[in-house]
Amino acid sequence: MEKLLVAKIGGNVVDNEEELNSFLKNFAAIDQPKILIHGGGKIATRVAEKLGVKTEMINGRRITSKENLDVVVQLYAGLINKNIVAQLQSSEYCNAIGLTGADANLITAVKRPVKDIDYGYVGDVVEVNANRIHQFIANGLTPVFSAITHNGLGQLFNTNADTIASQIAIALSNYYDVSLYYCFELKGVLADITDKNSVITNINTSKYEELKTEGIIADGMLPKMENCFNALQQNVSEVHIANSDFVTNQKTLHTILTL
Amino acid sequence: MEKLLVAKIGGNVVDNEEELNSFLKNFAAIDQPKILIHGGGKIATRVAEKLGVKTEMINGRRITSKENLDVVVQLYAGLINKNIVAQLQSSEYCNAIGLTGADANLITAVKRPVKDIDYGYVGDVVEVNANRIHQFIANGLTPVFSAITHNGLGQLFNTNADTIASQIAIALSNYYDVSLYYCFELKGVLADITDKNSVITNINTSKYEELKTEGIIADGMLPKMENCFNALQQNVSEVHIANSDFVTNQKTLHTILTL
Repeated sequence: MEKLLVAKIGGNVVDNEEELNSFLKNFAAIDQPKILIHGGGKIATRVAEKLGVKTEMINGRRITSKENLDVVVQLYAGLINKNIVAQLQSSEYCNAIGLTGADANLITAVKRPVKDIDYGYVGDVVEVNANRIHQFIANGLTPVFSAITHNGLGQLFNTNADTIASQIAIALSNYYDVSLYYCFELKGVLADITDKNSVITNINTSKYEELKTEGIIADGMLPKMENCFNALQQNVSEVHIANSDFVTNQKTLHTILTL
Repeated sequence: MEKLLVAKIGGNVVDNEEELNSFLKNFAAIDQPKILIHGGGKIATRVAEKLGVKTEMINGRRITSKENLDVVVQLYAGLINKNIVAQLQSSEYCNAIGLTGADANLITAVKRPVKDIDYGYVGDVVEVNANRIHQFIANGLTPVFSAITHNGLGQLFNTNADTIASQIAIALSNYYDVSLYYCFELKGVLADITDKNSVITNINTSKYEELKTEGIIADGMLPKMENCFNALQQNVSEVHIANSDFVTNQKTLHTILTL
């Protein structure tokens, strides 16, 4: 099977112009089929404030109102996505195409079911159209996804970018030997959050349970880890959590996930 | 040759939710290859004001500063484009894909040369990648373009949507028998701007010269007409200026252009 690289860059990378440019230059130069998924960064919060759109939080979780959704669609699918595409296009080796889940019906989702909290316009992924994404790649294109999905009935949703990355990686495993990279500002999963070099280089499922029990992996890292193991359980060959320079410098210290 | 419909909707249609929804429903149902190009509407000006981004005008022409460009990319390529795509996707007959000129390198442009006025980040179209657009259509997709282009060196540009529509229509004439529709809030070119029913139903090049001399066609209509005749001169089969309901109601009073 042909190899496919699926890379996700987090909001902190998007927010840092120098780090983003460096990542995009390296990513564009990778000479194999590839897909990029990008997070949003702090700009959505900044622009929402300027526009007078309030960001409601319940139990530390962000609620996506209609007005928040509009801001997120503008910035993620518009400003950030199209600037990333234009920059990748400046490399002769990366024919990037910017996409949301609505485009070509690539990712359908449903509104997250209301249990204790109504998250608003947040979508949980239902299906990734792997066949169409495969067609784009086979035709020489590099898909670049913002984390926006739709329900097929005219409604857009804000969706977790880590989950989109793992769902795309899983769906494309029918066509490719897929490696999934979660790239962010740190070097990997840290044993000590105050020590940037305390990278835990290998985490398998039993080690993961230990680290959770010890409280070393907590909060925002938990859903990311769930996405990683979910991908490994569904035929994704490799999953890495690494700094954004890792894509082109694979000897760098980072975290490798295994079952 | 297979028929292709290229429709452009203006900012006034985009601004009017009811008119937009009605147009999109009708457009989605058209059972032939088709492309949509949409303008931006007044929302960019409104959002720019809220964000404290000034809109500079020189001799009545809008200047696109870096900050203006960011707003335009957000709203045209983000909010408006993706909501149009999601709505078209709600029809089972329209597999829409939202695009800018940067995506898949579809439309390259150069910064408008500075003579008397520096328009800022405004791009003049250099080339439309008709082969790739044809590939998307042949694969069952309906391209939906916002009026954003790029220079291939990482820079996005704001570009005139009428020009993009005519350039796409011209480029696709190598593959299809193309009909180009400029759809807006009026019924066509009016002999008397105060009488909505005073539609001039046929305008050829000599009639156009007359109407210019008489001052009946002036201002913003002039570049639109130039785009129309430019398209006819370069193998586009039909060009119409009509109301947004015309696409599905072709007996409506409207303006037909001929050479």
